[in-house]
Amino acid sequence: MDIQTKTQHFSSPLYLESGRILEPYEIRYETYGKLDDDKRNVILICHALSGSHHAAGTYDGDRKAGWWDGLIGDGKAIDTSRYFVISSNVVGSCFGSTGPMSEKYPSEERYRLKFPVVTIKDMIRAQMHLLSSLGIYHLRAIVGGSMGGMQALQFAVDYPNLADDIISLAATYATRPWTIAFNKVAVEAIRRDSRFENGNYAIDAFVEDGLDGLAIGRIAGHISYLSPHSMDDKFSRNYVGNDGLFELFGRYEVERYMEYNTDNFSKTFDPLSYLYIVKAINTYNLARGYDSLYDAILRIKARVHLISFSSDYLFFPSEMEHIHKMMIRNGQSCSYSEIESDYGHDAFLVELHKFEDEIRDILD
Amino acid sequence: MDIQTKTQHFSSPLYLESGRILEPYEIRYETYGKLDDDKRNVILICHALSGSHHAAGTYDGDRKAGWWDGLIGDGKAIDTSRYFVISSNVVGSCFGSTGPMSEKYPSEERYRLKFPVVTIKDMIRAQMHLLSSLGIYHLRAIVGGSMGGMQALQFAVDYPNLADDIISLAATYATRPWTIAFNKVAVEAIRRDSRFENGNYAIDAFVEDGLDGLAIGRIAGHISYLSPHSMDDKFSRNYVGNDGLFELFGRYEVERYMEYNTDNFSKTFDPLSYLYIVKAINTYNLARGYDSLYDAILRIKARVHLISFSSDYLFFPSEMEHIHKMMIRNGQSCSYSEIESDYGHDAFLVELHKFEDEIRDILD
Repeated sequence: MDIQTKTQHFSSPLYLESGRILEPYEIRYETYGKLDDDKRNVILICHALSGSHHAAGTYDGDRKAGWWDGLIGDGKAIDTSRYFVISSNVVGSCFGSTGPMSEKYPSEERYRLKFPVVTIKDMIRAQMHLLSSLGIYHLRAIVGGSMGGMQALQFAVDYPNLADDIISLAATYATRPWTIAFNKVAVEAIRRDSRFENGNYAIDAFVEDGLDGLAIGRIAGHISYLSPHSMDDKFSRNYVGNDGLFELFGRYEVERYMEYNTDNFSKTFDPLSYLYIVKAINTYNLARGYDSLYDAILRIKARVHLISFSSDYLFFPSEMEHIHKMMIRNGQSCSYSEIESDYGHDAFLVELHKFEDEIRDILD
Repeated sequence: MDIQTKTQHFSSPLYLESGRILEPYEIRYETYGKLDDDKRNVILICHALSGSHHAAGTYDGDRKAGWWDGLIGDGKAIDTSRYFVISSNVVGSCFGSTGPMSEKYPSEERYRLKFPVVTIKDMIRAQMHLLSSLGIYHLRAIVGGSMGGMQALQFAVDYPNLADDIISLAATYATRPWTIAFNKVAVEAIRRDSRFENGNYAIDAFVEDGLDGLAIGRIAGHISYLSPHSMDDKFSRNYVGNDGLFELFGRYEVERYMEYNTDNFSKTFDPLSYLYIVKAINTYNLARGYDSLYDAILRIKARVHLISFSSDYLFFPSEMEHIHKMMIRNGQSCSYSEIESDYGHDAFLVELHKFEDEIRDILD
């Protein structure tokens, strides 16, 4: 599989939904496979909150493959021997695309809290510019889970003629207060952490000791990505060590898991980017900019494929079902599968074997 | 209704499950109604994590009544014109019973992190001592929700001859990792808050500005007390103010609710007590000290009444059902009702009208 990692620079402005402008800006992206001469074998992958453009393959010297490596590759469900796959880092993130820690041209000052709020609509508009810059005007499919699934649906609504198929997993039509509340833990924990310094922290401030606020917020995140059942299976009521039950800070295995995962995360993810991406998720609402959700959905021309997971406690299956019912009532092309899973929201990253055939069939 | 608020001092030791000893200790408690001459008209009320002995009535000059005031009073479901109701503050809490901020006799130093871990079993053992000191050896009923429901069930197992009826709402037989994970947010947020000073904060340190760590942990708590549906009903996607959608720290109504409730809470509740009570909830397991859950449950002689709420996302109805099935299989007396509610775990405090008749019937 041919992997290319590149950065595209845009000197033309990105007009944001807020009315503000991002100019200039950059998009970091990765491609897998080969672009056909007619440039019509393209599949766009959209990443989730903590994801990046690195969706597949393994970098030299790296142990970990991209976040959807099981799905994307030669002969895999998203077959890079047939398709040219593009995966970009969203604006606002911290893996190479312009975000709050980027320098605000022409100064060398970083944006920090002066970075404009970006929305899911803004994220996909930036990706449209990336596609244009590559001379690509038609997509075979757009695929994403969670915030990536939001982007896929937003593409379907905002750019009805762009893609043949839209595959959205573990997403919704508008973020509910339940999810906003989980995000609120992170927002408050980051804001109130004195080391966050109201966004004025040094660039490498958290490399050694991650920001506690981000780690704490991420614990709430991990709760919402799992499910009661997946936690039972994974951790049961097992205790770490033998004699710690009556120690105040003795830990259950689920607690160790939360500490381990979140402490590491808080060393590698930028807290300002976290705040901005969480804001984009909170403000996600397919209906915004249209008369109603019905009006927004009605614009869709692509075949839409919705995949939810029975134990998803962040975006419930009923939310995807709502879109499906609306599209079917409108006579639009839409399939819906609720996959039985105990893995919760994380299933879209974990239980690939349960939906890879469906994706393969859609693309065939 | 005759309300009495008192403190009982115990100079004899409280032997804790950990092997440690609390000596001396005090229990703050409240009573409603009049004790019969034969002392057999007693109902014991057990409170939840953030609760206190103040379950009913309104103090002079106070606007807010006790936390179950709708249920307890003259002519109410728990009828104080017939019953003598006792409600005590659990050991470890911060409303008058001995807890981590109490002075460690004979020194005048406070326990702080040297306070021993207390468990649900310890909490009820202390209440047994309180009952003995009042000459009460038989209870008409024990009633509690959430951690109070855990105590009610633990009473049923540990002291099978004490009460005629056990009414446990919104509880479980053992705390699952899902709940421990929610509590973990609070544990980490408190521990890592620099103003917590590893438990060495001044006694009135948080009266003006609550401890951020406790407020943040409490946001996670409030998520688990509500449900996706109750949040939809309560907040929808409403925004606070008109023009804040594209402000990074502009807030949705659900966010304002979380801030308001948790900031106030963090000014009035002691963070060390919070850590200790959360530990008691985490370690709750009816089976501990017995061969198995089956063995523990088999000891119960009281009539047990389990009430769960369909939308409880903290302790799921299936957990109460599990106890019910086990007791029915054993030929023990047990009723189970799952109440339709959109209020989530909080329903046991909010939707009294949906279960007060059941409680009245049980007590009649």
